[in-house]
Amino acid sequence: MSFNIELIGFIAAILTTVAFIPQVYKVWQTKSVSGMSLTMYLIFFCGVLLWLVYGLIINSLPMIIGNAVTIVLTLIILYFLLRSKWSN
Amino acid sequence: MSFNIELIGFIAAILTTVAFIPQVYKVWQTKSVSGMSLTMYLIFFCGVLLWLVYGLIINSLPMIIGNAVTIVLTLIILYFLLRSKWSN
Repeated sequence: MSFNIELIGFIAAILTTVAFIPQVYKVWQTKSVSGMSLTMYLIFFCGVLLWLVYGLIINSLPMIIGNAVTIVLTLIILYFLLRSKWSN
Repeated sequence: MSFNIELIGFIAAILTTVAFIPQVYKVWQTKSVSGMSLTMYLIFFCGVLLWLVYGLIINSLPMIIGNAVTIVLTLIILYFLLRSKWSN
């Protein structure tokens, strides 16, 4: 695949991955997940996992790296969401 | 691309798209965006837009459809986030 196409993919991957950092930071700082949907992040996690599989199959490096990092960030948010649910 | 690979992509696209529906519903019902990060959704929106461009270039139907729908859902969340920011 040409360099330019992969570059667009990489910028897309960086943006959709970096996007979760302010949310992770907000949750981490406030220890609050109020207003956030557990269902959303559970479904989203499964989806990102499958995007990673898809990226591996079609051999798209931006998709592989981007989705792998997003999985880690989503797991942090899920940890706080589940902890909040269990403590209530 | 083979049917099975596209199927994985389609399930991934459905999951990461559907994931936003509970969050949109929660925001719509409560008219509250408390705890949600505007920065996250602004960066995420730009990222999804680029994934759509990437999907169009590599001709991946799951990426095109999935990202197009996610853009609409993200725009709804952004509308409420920006309205909340401006009214404060």
